[in-house]
Amino acid sequence: MNWHDLNSSLQLPDYTPTVAVADASDASLFEMAEEAIKMNVCRFHFHGTEERMKKAVAEANFSFSESEYASFFPEEDSGAAGSAAVRDVRGKNASVLMKGMIDTGTLLKSVLSKEDGLRTGNILSHLAAFSLPGRDALLYLSDSAMNIAPDLSEKKQIVENAANTVHKIGIEKPKIAVLAAVETVNPSMQATLDAAALAQMSSRGQLGKCEVDGPLGFDNAVSETAAAKKNISSAVAGKADILIAPEIETANVLYKSLTYFGGATVGGILAGAAAPVVLTSRTDTVESKLFSLLLGLSAVKNNENDDN
Amino acid sequence: MNWHDLNSSLQLPDYTPTVAVADASDASLFEMAEEAIKMNVCRFHFHGTEERMKKAVAEANFSFSESEYASFFPEEDSGAAGSAAVRDVRGKNASVLMKGMIDTGTLLKSVLSKEDGLRTGNILSHLAAFSLPGRDALLYLSDSAMNIAPDLSEKKQIVENAANTVHKIGIEKPKIAVLAAVETVNPSMQATLDAAALAQMSSRGQLGKCEVDGPLGFDNAVSETAAAKKNISSAVAGKADILIAPEIETANVLYKSLTYFGGATVGGILAGAAAPVVLTSRTDTVESKLFSLLLGLSAVKNNENDDN
Repeated sequence: MNWHDLNSSLQLPDYTPTVAVADASDASLFEMAEEAIKMNVCRFHFHGTEERMKKAVAEANFSFSESEYASFFPEEDSGAAGSAAVRDVRGKNASVLMKGMIDTGTLLKSVLSKEDGLRTGNILSHLAAFSLPGRDALLYLSDSAMNIAPDLSEKKQIVENAANTVHKIGIEKPKIAVLAAVETVNPSMQATLDAAALAQMSSRGQLGKCEVDGPLGFDNAVSETAAAKKNISSAVAGKADILIAPEIETANVLYKSLTYFGGATVGGILAGAAAPVVLTSRTDTVESKLFSLLLGLSAVKNNENDDN
Repeated sequence: MNWHDLNSSLQLPDYTPTVAVADASDASLFEMAEEAIKMNVCRFHFHGTEERMKKAVAEANFSFSESEYASFFPEEDSGAAGSAAVRDVRGKNASVLMKGMIDTGTLLKSVLSKEDGLRTGNILSHLAAFSLPGRDALLYLSDSAMNIAPDLSEKKQIVENAANTVHKIGIEKPKIAVLAAVETVNPSMQATLDAAALAQMSSRGQLGKCEVDGPLGFDNAVSETAAAKKNISSAVAGKADILIAPEIETANVLYKSLTYFGGATVGGILAGAAAPVVLTSRTDTVESKLFSLLLGLSAVKNNENDDN
């Protein structure tokens, strides 16, 4: 991936936001932080146990420990570090929450806490971004990781979360394709019915600053040639910025096929919370973790004066 | 695609089988037939209306009209041509049925006729084969086109149809991965429950000559590295010949992503009938149509003495 191109399609903020890390206790996280600080894209608040943070810092040869770009907040254990990181974001001392070694379920419990979490009215949903060879713009996909079999009301929130996030990242009015196996509305295929409802919600202005169309096949969504062959007249077909999958299996298999056979580099964040949540997995490469962080940082851009 | 490599992974029959075409009335079909005859892989029985067959033959500059490789059977209309082609296969005068310009629903009605169709005990299912850059063997996928939301009993038949077909094509004991979003059995994810049941059916010998494992993510199914990272111990993980998707959306999106971003060449047939049914679409390239035909031809190999 070309970081310069990526930076320009992501439109990073022009100030230096702070990232609160929940349980910063593995070396690869500090390796990523080292790169991010060198790129001058953010500063970090590391929450974790003192002993494990020290060990990871040493292992990663992290060179910014004493700098203004890194602050350390020792906590009793992983769970306490998670709560502290969430409170850090809630109190506006940090703009992005990033998962460290904390268990995902434990972190989400803190994020979803009614008293001191980061809840909005919407569900949380995962948004992936793919940098693909032969394609200039990023391609976004939701939801390959959080919601198993969303109903129409949940799909509406997934669309809103994706649209709001990508809007902040820099696309004025994102084009959103709701995927199905066919591009016609078929009463015996629930995915096509939900897609049609979402498209109509969009044209009635119920979904805010985005343009939603569906059902669309994956080919009609991303290829103008394929859309033209099927005579699909749509502002979205062939030009989709965001793909919404009918359920987790479709999204997850697409995610992995783009990565394994499509040569994609991928990043991902959770949308739907009061701040972007960067949720990388242990097996991610440093490059992929950095991509996810950049996505999260882009999604806070203008957060204060553009909070819809 | 390299046709020589493809031929060797497909193990075409060593005699010259006959293909019955249902409604042979478009030029691109005769262009494909021209190539197939030159490759000496089959002969054709063209069923259609006299006028439209003549027109298409002329348009395609089809040069084998007068040869032993082409016979013409004029019928009243498209539907009659379909029935005649099906009867041709049922009467053992042809080994493969191929869709021409006939409407798919009309052709399937003839195929599924209880009196003079090509029914077996199983449902019909679509089986796609992908030739992918960087992968030696073909990768098979079912079902991206026929069954919308198969239940466990239908999934069992989809597995059997795929296994029997690929077995005839030349893989002694195909490895079959049942896809899901995760590789653990999760009571709230139906795809993982069905996958677990199919895996267990296989280990109890209920699914014949194949090895089924699941749930597996797409990455764990096709990449040994990914499977090893997750510590999955399985004869199938990372080495799958066939992928079974939980429902049509997952299969269809995977099909199209492999084609659009994975550089795949794809062919497909219907399995589960008494003979392979080659069902190409108008928008397929001649190359893709030919690939589908070759798949169908391979799947009749040893049909007579190996009919399980």
